[in-house]
Amino acid sequence: MYDVAVIGTGAAGVSAVLTFKALGLDFLWLGLPALSSKIAAAEQIRNYPGLPFVSGQEMKNVFLRQVEEMGIAITPQTVTGVYPMDGHFGILCGQELYESQTVILCTGVESVKPIPGELEYVGRGVSYCATCDGFLYQGKTIAVECTAKELEHEIGYLAGLAAKVYLVPLYPNPAVAAENVEIIRGMPLAIEGDAKAERVVFRDRTLDVDGVFMLKQAIAPSVLLNGLETAEGHIVIDRQCRTNIPGCFAAGDCTGRPYQYAKAVGEGNVAAHTAAETVKKARSAN
Amino acid sequence: MYDVAVIGTGAAGVSAVLTFKALGLDFLWLGLPALSSKIAAAEQIRNYPGLPFVSGQEMKNVFLRQVEEMGIAITPQTVTGVYPMDGHFGILCGQELYESQTVILCTGVESVKPIPGELEYVGRGVSYCATCDGFLYQGKTIAVECTAKELEHEIGYLAGLAAKVYLVPLYPNPAVAAENVEIIRGMPLAIEGDAKAERVVFRDRTLDVDGVFMLKQAIAPSVLLNGLETAEGHIVIDRQCRTNIPGCFAAGDCTGRPYQYAKAVGEGNVAAHTAAETVKKARSAN
Repeated sequence: MYDVAVIGTGAAGVSAVLTFKALGLDFLWLGLPALSSKIAAAEQIRNYPGLPFVSGQEMKNVFLRQVEEMGIAITPQTVTGVYPMDGHFGILCGQELYESQTVILCTGVESVKPIPGELEYVGRGVSYCATCDGFLYQGKTIAVECTAKELEHEIGYLAGLAAKVYLVPLYPNPAVAAENVEIIRGMPLAIEGDAKAERVVFRDRTLDVDGVFMLKQAIAPSVLLNGLETAEGHIVIDRQCRTNIPGCFAAGDCTGRPYQYAKAVGEGNVAAHTAAETVKKARSAN
Repeated sequence: MYDVAVIGTGAAGVSAVLTFKALGLDFLWLGLPALSSKIAAAEQIRNYPGLPFVSGQEMKNVFLRQVEEMGIAITPQTVTGVYPMDGHFGILCGQELYESQTVILCTGVESVKPIPGELEYVGRGVSYCATCDGFLYQGKTIAVECTAKELEHEIGYLAGLAAKVYLVPLYPNPAVAAENVEIIRGMPLAIEGDAKAERVVFRDRTLDVDGVFMLKQAIAPSVLLNGLETAEGHIVIDRQCRTNIPGCFAAGDCTGRPYQYAKAVGEGNVAAHTAAETVKKARSAN
């Protein structure tokens, strides 16, 4: 069992793992292997102390080199659920289960809000994870909403399983080379069905489907961890970055505005220190 | 009148002014002109994202170059008091008064705790500011406790005014070349007197004085701003870095542990955004 699992490879996650490494804790770092693509999004960053007039891409490269130099590895997994157990956490990544004593959520914010029906049908026809649930749709018809080009490889995986894929790309120039993929323009407005998701509604049409995949960079935190207190889509934390669930901390954009590198880095540091203290206390109690 | 005054030139102050510059606000930055010497204190920093394996001195140099490149100037003043006025603040630096709509306190923590009598006699024989109060002690006998080598030049100033200076240096190798300065070894235990400070008590002796100067890098926040809520010597803030006094924010070590560069930088950023919002709201109300 790990001391701590850090979920997310944005600026807050980077700050947290650097601190754990310095403190000598045994940690697991889950997320996109080349760091969150959001780090690279900014054209120019003018207010991050230490990196003057840097582009987001340059900052990302500096961060990536720094974690490599520190010998820190990213476990390239998409977390599909976090489960509080007796004094520790189970972290499910598709079929894979990891265990850690504490968890830091650095999951960012998804600018694409859940649509009506989405959260209601999670696990009943709506999935956030291609590799976890794809096998359920062999030979079936599915809709796939994809929010970022970095997630495009998951569409290829799904197209290899499903008979028919309606792809709804929310980014320019999608490039998926599979004959059974039909690109749908427009924003999905709602997911409908009876016992399970059966239809995706657009302004000008409705698609009949067996399932819907929503490929996002950040899953809504309350979906990830049942019972997690949120307010207006953000995880509620105190000044020590504690959430309402003991042993679970949060840092970065997922805890609210300002959406800033410096703020994320600061909270990642604080969350790491609070988690380290929690681990230390538990050790001395045993 | 300035939009905001940032008090302190440590990591939190650097982060705040970079953000104000980016946001286009009219700000005043008060503190040591070569940045707080505490930035340079760390031998090696291993967990600050963006600056791998950097020494404190290197970090200080990077920060200093960055603020210079952004065209940001430091006003080299020691703040002796912050006074909430009708909708804005008066900031007293010795004889000089500045005015700003909002204030961010980035004053750090002083590792040397106040001794008995110190806070009681502030303004009645105890002073934190050589240039402000030195003239009161022309031809008199004073004790000067100095906590850091960076403040040594103030001793020279006082020695030019007073007849006799008992210097209590709390750092190694003091270098003050003045005949009327006598170096006293040991820690002062208390300041005593009747209506005003008259004696400094040590374990092995008691010095009779007309006044006592306590030269510190950070004045206790509750001395700086009367009525400011503190807990265990730290300024109490919420997650938006608001103190209990409207328009007054705080960031960095002065708000509590962990005493980390990343945490200070994060809070400086958040405080700057909250202050900017406050200024914007006041503007649109007028």
